[in-house]
Amino acid sequence: MNKEQISKRYSNSTVEAQEKVVLKSPGTIANLVCGFDILGLALSEPYDIMEFRLTDEPGVTIINRDEFNLPTDPEKNVAGVVLLAALEKAKSNKGIEVTIEKRIKPGSGLGSSAASAAGAAVGANHVLGNIFSTDDLVQLAMIGEKLATGVKHADNITPCILGGVTLIRSIHPLDIVPLAAPDLFVTVVHPQIEVRTSDARQILRKQVFLKDAIKQWGNIAGLVTGFMKNDTDLIGRSLEDVIIEPIRSILIPGFDEVKLKCNEAGALGGGISGSGPSIFMLSKDETTARRVANIMNGVYDKIGIESNVYITTINKNGVEAYPIQNE
Amino acid sequence: MNKEQISKRYSNSTVEAQEKVVLKSPGTIANLVCGFDILGLALSEPYDIMEFRLTDEPGVTIINRDEFNLPTDPEKNVAGVVLLAALEKAKSNKGIEVTIEKRIKPGSGLGSSAASAAGAAVGANHVLGNIFSTDDLVQLAMIGEKLATGVKHADNITPCILGGVTLIRSIHPLDIVPLAAPDLFVTVVHPQIEVRTSDARQILRKQVFLKDAIKQWGNIAGLVTGFMKNDTDLIGRSLEDVIIEPIRSILIPGFDEVKLKCNEAGALGGGISGSGPSIFMLSKDETTARRVANIMNGVYDKIGIESNVYITTINKNGVEAYPIQNE
Repeated sequence: MNKEQISKRYSNSTVEAQEKVVLKSPGTIANLVCGFDILGLALSEPYDIMEFRLTDEPGVTIINRDEFNLPTDPEKNVAGVVLLAALEKAKSNKGIEVTIEKRIKPGSGLGSSAASAAGAAVGANHVLGNIFSTDDLVQLAMIGEKLATGVKHADNITPCILGGVTLIRSIHPLDIVPLAAPDLFVTVVHPQIEVRTSDARQILRKQVFLKDAIKQWGNIAGLVTGFMKNDTDLIGRSLEDVIIEPIRSILIPGFDEVKLKCNEAGALGGGISGSGPSIFMLSKDETTARRVANIMNGVYDKIGIESNVYITTINKNGVEAYPIQNE
Repeated sequence: MNKEQISKRYSNSTVEAQEKVVLKSPGTIANLVCGFDILGLALSEPYDIMEFRLTDEPGVTIINRDEFNLPTDPEKNVAGVVLLAALEKAKSNKGIEVTIEKRIKPGSGLGSSAASAAGAAVGANHVLGNIFSTDDLVQLAMIGEKLATGVKHADNITPCILGGVTLIRSIHPLDIVPLAAPDLFVTVVHPQIEVRTSDARQILRKQVFLKDAIKQWGNIAGLVTGFMKNDTDLIGRSLEDVIIEPIRSILIPGFDEVKLKCNEAGALGGGISGSGPSIFMLSKDETTARRVANIMNGVYDKIGIESNVYITTINKNGVEAYPIQNE
């Protein structure tokens, strides 16, 4: 899909541009096993709900309808900075009010900040009259990711906006490639522990062995091919990370046991979601996905760590907007 | 394509198994820019011609019909060791006589030894009654590559046998994945200098920066996607090697100038073929491929190094066998 096709696809949205819109902004899995920093996928659940309204008074107003106590100062809020940037880019003298019901827990490794950032970019685009290209949306949303993580990265934002499995071939210049939206089930466990993204970055080695890098890029090529051919066996064989996972998994108690038992139970494979602590496993069918969920619950019950488990699918549409009737 | 499909495809060959066969075994490009050690493609030209005959006397007889003075002792000949292994694997008490007209110059970086090894495996399979799977053929041919280069590698052998662009996801266990056979033109220049494969291996660094590895695997994912979607722009953007080429290209005089001028002239991109010294460039159309050939000739004329240039296409069929009438 080239840029025009992506833009066309994106503007074929559920609703026409209008002054009020509500949308579902999905959770995402970045760093897809061997695809560190380049591959991501969108989840059907969990998702945030965001409502946008164009206002006559300039500026951004944030209303939180959840328990997370996120900042309402737009300069300090992930969605806020994106909305400010969108208004500025649009040279608009209007304002935007956003009401956020966050359901993706911050710090879960499921793209909570990306959902806010991407949702804000798409929501702003709707109320401002569908003026932004997909590349614009990704660039705007990256401003939110920068605030949240200190780094402009697009591997959660891109699948969040486009749906399916996406490739970020390059950030400078931005080169995003939608790959496929396979009919796979995803089971995700979020153990209620904290893994800071900055810690997860810091423990990585700056250099890696060439032989490991070669193994990794063989797996990446296999994984991409598997997604595009819908070859689940090849996807399974390629879900192997010899570089990042051996280091980062140390930060996640129960990781090895979850992965081993889920693979034995028939999952295709999986790994750390984002920089953790969530762990995901892909399965061909719902029965296996449920079996995997039971295993995940069992492991964390035994260790004595509270956990949330989601049994879901790959979201094919990304952020979805719905019209709001005018009162 | 799964293993059964590959085998089926392969056994849909031009000829039925018979006691005499002649075949064309094509040159190949391994280490496809960012796809070091994992991606290769087959060329329509140059190719070796090999004729096989099952004999009543056991053992292997080699007849060379070229100027290269390759060993006729089967234990020291790339095709010879493959034929010996094939006879042993087949538990045959017969022998094989092979007549080789080598047209792919040894040491060119165009898979000359792989053409001998893969041709021998396929030829043996024909005269012994089509008893080997594609994986068997690759394993047999790797015995020849081991003799030639000291390393069992399959990234020339696999495209030589299957045609098109192929992925070696893994050598242990062997996992070969045919990707696509795009309608692209390939221009190859072989400057008449020697680059030993062992030297080209030795100058590589054992460790690479993680940030470079990430860039490389973004490009690999882009290249694979480009081949599968037949997206030539994406192929072009992804033909970038930040790890191997900056080091190995030092061994090839004129490399930077050839690449720069060919890209300016409209080529999609390219790089070192195998471990060199040949350089290849991909183009969308024949006109560009011919322009690229002129540039290559011009650069080496100026430097004063003799060179051969091929203007060809991606070979879609791999080794092709033809029947021989019995005298």
